[in-house]
Amino acid sequence: MIAAVLGSGAWGTTFAQVLADAGCSVRLWGRSVETAEQVNTDHVNGRYLPGVVLPETITATTDAAQALAGADLVVIAIPSQSARATLEPLRAFLPAHAVAVSLMKGVELSTDQRMSQVVAEALDIDARRVAVVSGPNLAGEIAQRQPTATVVSSTDPATAALVAKACSSGYFRPYTNADVVGVELCGAVKNVIALAVGMAQGRGFGYNTTATVITRGLAEITRLGLALGADSETFPGLAGMGDLMATCASPSSRNHTLGRHLGQGMALEDAIVATGGTAEGVKSCRSVLELARSVGVEMPITEAVVGVLHAGLPVEDMARGLLARPQRAEGTGRSDVGHVA
Amino acid sequence: MIAAVLGSGAWGTTFAQVLADAGCSVRLWGRSVETAEQVNTDHVNGRYLPGVVLPETITATTDAAQALAGADLVVIAIPSQSARATLEPLRAFLPAHAVAVSLMKGVELSTDQRMSQVVAEALDIDARRVAVVSGPNLAGEIAQRQPTATVVSSTDPATAALVAKACSSGYFRPYTNADVVGVELCGAVKNVIALAVGMAQGRGFGYNTTATVITRGLAEITRLGLALGADSETFPGLAGMGDLMATCASPSSRNHTLGRHLGQGMALEDAIVATGGTAEGVKSCRSVLELARSVGVEMPITEAVVGVLHAGLPVEDMARGLLARPQRAEGTGRSDVGHVA
Repeated sequence: MIAAVLGSGAWGTTFAQVLADAGCSVRLWGRSVETAEQVNTDHVNGRYLPGVVLPETITATTDAAQALAGADLVVIAIPSQSARATLEPLRAFLPAHAVAVSLMKGVELSTDQRMSQVVAEALDIDARRVAVVSGPNLAGEIAQRQPTATVVSSTDPATAALVAKACSSGYFRPYTNADVVGVELCGAVKNVIALAVGMAQGRGFGYNTTATVITRGLAEITRLGLALGADSETFPGLAGMGDLMATCASPSSRNHTLGRHLGQGMALEDAIVATGGTAEGVKSCRSVLELARSVGVEMPITEAVVGVLHAGLPVEDMARGLLARPQRAEGTGRSDVGHVA
Repeated sequence: MIAAVLGSGAWGTTFAQVLADAGCSVRLWGRSVETAEQVNTDHVNGRYLPGVVLPETITATTDAAQALAGADLVVIAIPSQSARATLEPLRAFLPAHAVAVSLMKGVELSTDQRMSQVVAEALDIDARRVAVVSGPNLAGEIAQRQPTATVVSSTDPATAALVAKACSSGYFRPYTNADVVGVELCGAVKNVIALAVGMAQGRGFGYNTTATVITRGLAEITRLGLALGADSETFPGLAGMGDLMATCASPSSRNHTLGRHLGQGMALEDAIVATGGTAEGVKSCRSVLELARSVGVEMPITEAVVGVLHAGLPVEDMARGLLARPQRAEGTGRSDVGHVA
């Protein structure tokens, strides 16, 4: 199978390795002439994956038409907010039979669309020809071929199966799933929960508090997802709990790190500087909360994060507020959306 | 409310503090005269909670009849395998209206009974008067009053509500739940998954592998639970995912530590010595697997743990075997028990 990978950052390059190890012939496209030459000559991407030797079956190019010619699979790993503008001019070069795979997380801020929707619109293809890949997939560890699993989700089971087969290898195990809405929702909201976990850890709290925030965070993501028509089984799975756990454990997660700085008492502007830039969750937490309110779902952790980031709520009042809520039955509220928290 | 706590180890003493902070008058019973004197005189339990100053509303005694007189709540935090023998002689002293609360994990090996069943039989009370408490509740962190949440489960909602109210405080948030079978199953099987996580980490694998083993581990616990009539919502909750995550993160978990030693290549006997004793999961993994087979449920991670511990399977073959399984749809197999893994 011929795969084009658009985006030669850490995740795009790593996924190119996964595909090559699974037997695909891979063309890696990126804007950097330097990176393309390095990949073709030395089989390394020194800027994003220092120390990793890539398979020789990966060739790199800065010419998108060349990368896309004859591709069965077009994998997209470019920054979410510029995806539409990057993809639209490539529409003409897309082979008629090709399947598109989004590795992107988050929501297009200008339209509130999920990334698979942006891909389908920008490439002008049916949603059934789009799959998304999401799971506990920190790029650096996969590049070292450490074992992990992931979810390949598409509304068309044949598309999901095709993509899963193309990327399945001895260290990367894909599970298929038909709930694209749930998978993409998990990928977007996890950053808000990672901020909350970071804040708790920055305050000096340990494993119990971390596990509680993640578990109750997953419960509120689940409530929102169910209200939007997602499948309840997605949330305790690899794209939900699995990705959330890996993100909240990794010191390389920007949301987690920014949350820690806030928990240690830094002001937001200083925390952004100390983190080396803003984090996805800072931008998206208000949209998530608005969405939840529009469907009548309570998201107390998200609400607390918005309070700390955008309404001056002290972090120490956040935990107290969450714990002081009235006594409840556990559960995601499958039968009681909007009332159980 | 008057509470008797039977067992002055780390968890019993910590839960006594939680109850005292929630406004209960607490009697702590244990066999050690020294501990009882220390608690009464200096308000400390130096052996199990060094450095923690206990509330003065906790009094300690070595006389069980005295501890139980007039108690509304009888909390049991003694070693699982000696619970029956310890409780039976106390039956006569139990106030007629008292509710029993099990803090114990695991299964009575001689009978395969869950701990709430052992408590009900040993004290000769109706199951509706028994509750269990389980969640991400590492004792040391709760003793320091770090925020956490937990599940209080009973077949009788009134019993669960009474116990939840009795232990609710500014740092300890109980959620009620009616699925005692699911909650106790999670508490028993988590140790097997913690062994598997330890093995993976001992082999040098990072956050992705850890999150994958925990997520797929929870999926197999869920499959078993559903086959036994448990409620699917329990598993992604605090007693399932929450406790599993805290256990697998904590360096003080014996199962996790023993797994790490095995992952680093130690033989089982040496790993037991290095861990300072055997771990619960080593004893229980075979019973869990037998139970799963008897109801036709696949538990590939549990099977791999049994293989490593009791059939000489090398740890390096374990990950390979798990990843090489045929391609599957994700899910706990709610609609397909025994076939999806």
